[in-house]
Amino acid sequence: MGAVTPLAKENKPTGSVKPIVDLTRADMERVNQLILSKAGSDVQMIPEVANHLISSGGKRLRPMLTLATAAMFGYRGEHHVRLATSVEFMHTATLLHDDVVDESDLRRGKSSARMIWGNQASVLVGDFLLGQAFRMMVETGSMQALKVLSDAAAVIAEGEVFQLAVSKKMETTEDDYIAVIRGKTAELFAAAAEVGPIIAGAADADRVALRDYGMALGLAFQLVDDVLDYGGSSADLGKNVGDDFREGKVTMPVILAYQRGNEIERAFWRNAIEDGVNDDAALEKARMLIEKHDALGDSIARALAYGEAARAALSPLPMSPARHALEEVVDFCIARIS
Amino acid sequence: MGAVTPLAKENKPTGSVKPIVDLTRADMERVNQLILSKAGSDVQMIPEVANHLISSGGKRLRPMLTLATAAMFGYRGEHHVRLATSVEFMHTATLLHDDVVDESDLRRGKSSARMIWGNQASVLVGDFLLGQAFRMMVETGSMQALKVLSDAAAVIAEGEVFQLAVSKKMETTEDDYIAVIRGKTAELFAAAAEVGPIIAGAADADRVALRDYGMALGLAFQLVDDVLDYGGSSADLGKNVGDDFREGKVTMPVILAYQRGNEIERAFWRNAIEDGVNDDAALEKARMLIEKHDALGDSIARALAYGEAARAALSPLPMSPARHALEEVVDFCIARIS
Repeated sequence: MGAVTPLAKENKPTGSVKPIVDLTRADMERVNQLILSKAGSDVQMIPEVANHLISSGGKRLRPMLTLATAAMFGYRGEHHVRLATSVEFMHTATLLHDDVVDESDLRRGKSSARMIWGNQASVLVGDFLLGQAFRMMVETGSMQALKVLSDAAAVIAEGEVFQLAVSKKMETTEDDYIAVIRGKTAELFAAAAEVGPIIAGAADADRVALRDYGMALGLAFQLVDDVLDYGGSSADLGKNVGDDFREGKVTMPVILAYQRGNEIERAFWRNAIEDGVNDDAALEKARMLIEKHDALGDSIARALAYGEAARAALSPLPMSPARHALEEVVDFCIARIS
Repeated sequence: MGAVTPLAKENKPTGSVKPIVDLTRADMERVNQLILSKAGSDVQMIPEVANHLISSGGKRLRPMLTLATAAMFGYRGEHHVRLATSVEFMHTATLLHDDVVDESDLRRGKSSARMIWGNQASVLVGDFLLGQAFRMMVETGSMQALKVLSDAAAVIAEGEVFQLAVSKKMETTEDDYIAVIRGKTAELFAAAAEVGPIIAGAADADRVALRDYGMALGLAFQLVDDVLDYGGSSADLGKNVGDDFREGKVTMPVILAYQRGNEIERAFWRNAIEDGVNDDAALEKARMLIEKHDALGDSIARALAYGEAARAALSPLPMSPARHALEEVVDFCIARIS
């Protein structure tokens, strides 16, 4: 396997993400080159900060979705590479801003950019990458793609503000939480999968199907992440088990355990999440309560249901290597918790 | 005068900004309504934060430039209102992020949003407004306007990062500084004045002339701001005299005084700007040194030269109420220091 694909570098079984990696290999090489080029600037701090995060080994699943969904309709131009890079820049900008918002010290197992260059650089380089993303979209000349991605930019930010508004609030409902992750995570998956068919000139029905696929995949992906934070190992995540807990994040397992808990347990959760009593002993107790109420199992069940919805969204599309690769991505996401 | 135009509310002589206020009054009413509508969200924190800044009495000079430059070519549609609102949202997003970057406590004489809602909300609501700005641009269907404004978004952020990279560095040259303010301030003035002729379908030469006008006006505007920080009163600025000094900002008067200073004076500047020895006594001494080397006078001379360049850029355009209003805006900006 080549050296350009971050996944291939990890030198471990890539599971069922292999079909999409293989399918998009040549295009991803061009995406990676465009990423480096468009993160460049005479202002030296910009490539320093940007490349710190860009080179830190994210899977680049989102740009692969754009490339694969364009390939599905036989697209032969250059614009899908620009759109895929725009999607990755939007994601990177979000991560830079998230680290400031969450006051995170780590990102993908490395010091976060804000710890090295400060909050200021993280905010402003994020803004720069967002500006570059929109420039690349404009270069494609596709007003439809611009509409989808500008909608996504606003919806993602709205989801992040909603998350901030409900953060450390144990009264957050399951519906609130799904609304948060629909915005902050799933919307970009949906947009990434929608701009592929758009640039390829696919029919509206196909475009809607792939948007639905991306949305459901994104919801499954985030719920799996939530579950791993209470049950995975830090190597899988690039962060440590219990990070969400220590940051006071109200995620699906916490919501379910809280709803099903007695008054004493609820007081524990409020102490932990709202008042920050979240040491190792508290984390141990949280895991025990989540286990007691099968909150992890039921979070997994929800992830599986969204995974099924993602697969179902693909069913009207003719079978093709791209469709197969997209189905395997769903399995790969789910497999992280099985 | 009506209540909708922030300038009119101030109940003091509006000087020569009156022609552009009068010219754009009806359209600005629609801009103000669109601002309120597009800053709305089911996520309550968004309009709270956005309206705090939006209602704080900025002059809205940038959207007026878009409206006036569209009016100059007899534009009769709706899209100039959307573009003007986009420009104002880009500006507001920049202010929200700037306050986080500068760790500012005050903005336009009120507590900054980050002091009330935290850095997190300022970053994310800024992102939301930027997303909304791009959505409105897309609604106009003008790929040319999208190009100008997405270029501006990247260039503004690049200028801000450059400012961060040279911040508190007394070795900043005059050229560095002009590059910083060209990006962080003048680019948006240029873009605001360019999208007016674009949406009105004006000739390329007119578009270039108005872009040049906006760029020169923006440079003059920023230099005047720099001068006022060492010589104005806080009522003029919505901030306090000496704010730039206390934040360690290297602005034109400081650069000129430093370049012209002897070794003892240079040591004073390094202490003040780089090491933060910037109490009231230091500010007094800084003003004295700026006076001694005529650094304020020469900063004003540069502002006047850019003002002349802005007027000259308009000279190929036929005389019209809009051109007259744009000329008066130049005089208004300069008049703040005369």
